[in-house]
Formats: sequence, structure tokens, C-alpha cells
Amino acid sequence: MRVNAYAAPAAGRPLAPTTIERRAVGPNDVLIEIEYAGICHSDIHTVNGDWGPQPFPVVPGREIVGVIAEVGSDVTGHRVGDRVGVGCMVNSCGECANCRSGNEQFCLNGMVPTYAGTDRDGSTTQGGYSTHVVVDAGFVLRVPDGIDPAAAAPLLCAGITTYSPLRRWGAGPGKQVAVVGLGGLGHMAVKLAAAMGAEVTVLSQSLKKQEDGLRLGATDYRATSDPDTFAQLAARFDLIINTVSAPIDVDAYLSLLAVDGTLVNVGAPAEPLSLHVMSLVGGRRNYAGSMIGGIAETQEMLDFCAAHRIGAEVEIIAADRVNEAYERVLASDVRYRFVIDAATLQ
Amino acid sequence: MRVNAYAAPAAGRPLAPTTIERRAVGPNDVLIEIEYAGICHSDIHTVNGDWGPQPFPVVPGREIVGVIAEVGSDVTGHRVGDRVGVGCMVNSCGECANCRSGNEQFCLNGMVPTYAGTDRDGSTTQGGYSTHVVVDAGFVLRVPDGIDPAAAAPLLCAGITTYSPLRRWGAGPGKQVAVVGLGGLGHMAVKLAAAMGAEVTVLSQSLKKQEDGLRLGATDYRATSDPDTFAQLAARFDLIINTVSAPIDVDAYLSLLAVDGTLVNVGAPAEPLSLHVMSLVGGRRNYAGSMIGGIAETQEMLDFCAAHRIGAEVEIIAADRVNEAYERVLASDVRYRFVIDAATLQ
Repeated sequence: MRVNAYAAPAAGRPLAPTTIERRAVGPNDVLIEIEYAGICHSDIHTVNGDWGPQPFPVVPGREIVGVIAEVGSDVTGHRVGDRVGVGCMVNSCGECANCRSGNEQFCLNGMVPTYAGTDRDGSTTQGGYSTHVVVDAGFVLRVPDGIDPAAAAPLLCAGITTYSPLRRWGAGPGKQVAVVGLGGLGHMAVKLAAAMGAEVTVLSQSLKKQEDGLRLGATDYRATSDPDTFAQLAARFDLIINTVSAPIDVDAYLSLLAVDGTLVNVGAPAEPLSLHVMSLVGGRRNYAGSMIGGIAETQEMLDFCAAHRIGAEVEIIAADRVNEAYERVLASDVRYRFVIDAATLQ
Repeated sequence: MRVNAYAAPAAGRPLAPTTIERRAVGPNDVLIEIEYAGICHSDIHTVNGDWGPQPFPVVPGREIVGVIAEVGSDVTGHRVGDRVGVGCMVNSCGECANCRSGNEQFCLNGMVPTYAGTDRDGSTTQGGYSTHVVVDAGFVLRVPDGIDPAAAAPLLCAGITTYSPLRRWGAGPGKQVAVVGLGGLGHMAVKLAAAMGAEVTVLSQSLKKQEDGLRLGATDYRATSDPDTFAQLAARFDLIINTVSAPIDVDAYLSLLAVDGTLVNVGAPAEPLSLHVMSLVGGRRNYAGSMIGGIAETQEMLDFCAAHRIGAEVEIIAADRVNEAYERVLASDVRYRFVIDAATLQ
């Protein structure tokens, strides 16, 4: 089927309306009528060519929420009319050790990204800035009642990206968690960590968004541009989630960790970082990385968000404002996620 | 009391016989008649001045085993005649969060090292290359029957330094553990990890010590100088214990970790290391550090070693061979630890 979409025709060029082909619904597929698609920083990096050559035209969008319009003959877990979501991946081998342990994002044969990827049938994937998408049912998540569908869309990337490390490194009652950066990822990390019962501090360059941070669930908010911050918070945190992809002073952030504490990067600068190993040895500290989450864990996150009435803070836009939205994201001028209303693509 | 000892008179100068003063046995103290003192690489770094100025003359030795000759009036846990050990620290504040959680090695007010440190009464500590030592009873470990006392001495530093990260990061049945470097620390890591039930691989520069490694408990032994090693072992290990303090290619070693795997440094080069954060993010990997262990954990390690009949592989020497032993340690010409027979100091 031919469907409406917004695509980048080439690296660095503005997105424009187009039509793309979606495959016929196979026995294990689900056809989703898209309601909302979040705008993730990765979308911008990809179409700008920051991450190397891409199979243009590229339809971005990996924070997708919609309603099932059709299911394949072998699909049992989903029904027409269900509200569902699709995140950063739409397929994986299903057979390697990592797929079998629920870590499809680390599929040893390569997980298939939601757009600009090569699917297992050889076709190029196209993302959520579109009216419809056909996805293998194993990569379709249930969006429970109780989450506004527009606010749910960013959970599929920003939500799971922060939920997974918070869970893995034990955010919960009695734990001190810091979140570095209060953007699309950071604001989700604050909400989720607070809902898990942790005490949350935001570490942001300035105090500009302090009021927001405290409203979202933080109990402390510090400016990293203030040199006293690092001395005052020394050895304070059990877990630091760094949502900033730009290079950081790793030693300085490690010094904020208590014994056995962990600093987790959920993004990575292209250039190597340097650190003194003594920053790890003194205090048995950890420097770790995390990348989205597995499918079962993504479902767990959505169920957690529904139970705690958590969604992203979103600004809903029409599709024809996507280029303007990209500029505002790059200028950090969004609180905290743009979401495209897919009805405006009809 | 005045006791015989071997001391370095100044940085880089050979050790020579001398006498030192040991404090009177206080109410919480224990007087130990030393039987054996291991020679640790740290001893050499310290007296060579590699770690900055020291309060010379310095009596090194932080792998001490002996028999209790006297106990203070308030000591309840130890009796005259007990075989005991002393490791890398002889005091700490006992009141900070880290001391209270059994992590005295990370005492927020500064743990007191066994030698070249300033004790809480202001005196300079002197180590185990001596006939006797007086130590706060809280830092004296029981050496269970079933471990040869000479082979037990290196457990107090090399043993706990490797036991602690193996335990913390879950070495055990079904786990793949690699040990980088087969020296004093590495040979203990192999023995301990194998006794815990893990499958152990040694990663050494060459295959020179392969036979030893397999005898000590490894099932695989690879040369890191062979470029194929890193490709062949990609994503293999749950845990890598790096006992080499020289700089390593962190990204290369991280590539050997499975999802959720951890690379732990138990020593630290002085210069900063560089790594690509993507090496951590891809595979949710950890880079961590570890430093000796707490007192309770050190006792647990000694009990574990007794239960599994584990000691260090030692070469026992007379005190007057200590300078020659230092040269051989620096040339990696020891399998795997020199231990001074303190009877030769009489």
C-alpha cells in the first residue's frame, strides 16, 4: 500500500511530504494506523548525515503510537482496534543469545532499526512520520489505557532509554539518583526515577529549568557551571544517568558517586573520552553505557508508566512544522518533546 | 618495644636491617609475632618513590601472617596463640558511612595503610618486614587451619584484591571470567574464580606461563600479542579482571564482554586512559575499579580459601634477599609471590 509520509530527500535537506510503499501484511505482521510520532534527537542526527551515509529518502520516527488496523493470520497477541506502540527496532534474528535473553537491541546478527535500516527481507525500513506502518508483531508493544497516546509516543525511545538503566542499576527507595541534562531523555529519567521511589537530583548547566525539574519529581537541582556543585555533591549518588551526548569530564562525574555507584551514559560522543582509572578504583565505581531496552522490558516500562500515570511532556505539532521543530530541538527550545499529529499527514 | 626490621632508608635506596619501635599494646590492640610477610608490588612502588614522597625510613609489608603474642585488656575476638593476618590497612574512623557498611578501605576520613601511613594517634605506621607488629584488633584477621601460613600471607593483599571483584560481579557456575596478567594478583584470581565455579581464561602477553595457568584452574589461555585473540574472544566474557597496572586498550578489552559484562581494573596507571563511550553503550557494558576489600570480606575470603584449600604459590626467602627479590619482581621473575620468613630477622 502507498501511504503519506514526511521524508528527508538527502542529507541535510528539509523534510518534505511524499508517499512511500508499505509491505503487504504478512502472517506475523500488524498494520498500524499511526496517531502520533515523537521527534527524537536521533532523527535529526540521521537525516543531517551526522551518523554517516543513509539510504535516502529517509522517513524518520521511532516513537510511534497508533491503533491496529489489520493483523496477519498467525498473530495472536494483538487485535484490530488495540492501541499499540513501536520503538527503535522492528526486527532481530530472534535466535542469538542476546535475542533469547530479551536483549534484542544487542542482537548479535544486528537488530533492524525502525528507519534507515535493512529489514530481514532486504527492504529499507521507513519510520513513523507517516500515516501507517507494517511491523512484525513481536516488535509491537501494547499501550495500556491510562496513558494519553500523544504523551505515550516518546516513551518508546526516551522512556525505555532511561527506564532500562534505572531498573538495571537499582533506582528505588533509599537511592540517590542524579540525572545529567533536562531534555527529552532527562525529563523522562526524572519522572521515572521519582516514580520508582528514588531521591532525584538534576544536574543541568544552568538553573533555567529548575522549576520544571522540581515539578517533574526532582528534590534537588544544581548547576554544573557552578564549580562548587562538584565539591558539594562529592560521593553523594548511587546512580547517575548522563543523558548528554556531548563529551563530559568523566572523572568529575565519577567523583559524585558513592561506593559501588554507577555513572551510565545513554548516549555517546563520537570522540573518545579520557578518564583516570583511579576514579573507578577509589570507591569501586562503575562507568557504564546503556542503549534503549529489550522488547519485554519496553512493555514493562509502558505498564509501569500506566500504573504511575506517567507520560512525556509533549508539544503536539502538525507535520508541516517538522523542519521548524528540528531547529527548535537543536536550540534546546522544547519542553520536552515534539510529537507529530499523524492526522495532519492525511 | 624495639624490634628488628628491614627498612628502606630513602627513596630508591636498598633495604637494610634496622630496629624500629612498636607501640605498647593498648586495650584494643593485639601484638603479633610475625611468621611471614609477602612482597607486594606496592612495596616496591612505595620505597622507589613512584607514589610520591614517603616518611622514610619505611618498613614495607602488607601481607602479614603470624601468631598472637599478647592481647589488650578489651580484646575479645582474639587469643594468645591464634594464627592471624594483617593486610593493607590497620585502622579507619569506624564511623563514616563506608566504615559502617564494611567498606573500611574507602573510609571517608582516610583508612590507615599498614606502612608509610599516619595512624590515628599521629604516629607513622611500619609494615610487616619485621619480627612483631601491634595492630588494632578490629583489623586483625583469623587465618583458619588448613592454609599453610606462608601461602596465606599473600592472601591478605593479592587474595582480597581479586576475591572482592570476583564476588561483587558474580563469578560462579555458568560465568565466563577472564584474568588479564598472570602475576601475583592474576594467579590468585585464577585460583579463586575457578574455586567459585566459573570458567576461567587467562589473557597474557605470551603463552610462556600457559602450563601454569591451566594447572592453577584456567581452561583456556590466550596470548594478547596475537591479534586474532580479540576477534576470536569477542563478546565472550561476563567478567574480566585486569591485574595489569600498565595502560591497556580499554575499547579492545570491552569488546570481549558479553551483554551486561564488566571489565574491572584492580590497579591503575598514573596516566589517564581513553575509551569510546560506544564501547560501553553497545552491550550495556561496565568499566569498573576495585581496591582490596573490607575487613569482613577479607575474613570471608580467608575462610573461603581454607574451605577450598587455596593459598598463594610462594617462594620463601630470608630477609637479606629482599633487594634481590625486588629486582626479580620487577623482571616478572617470580612464580608467583616472594614471602619473607620473619624468623630470619631475629
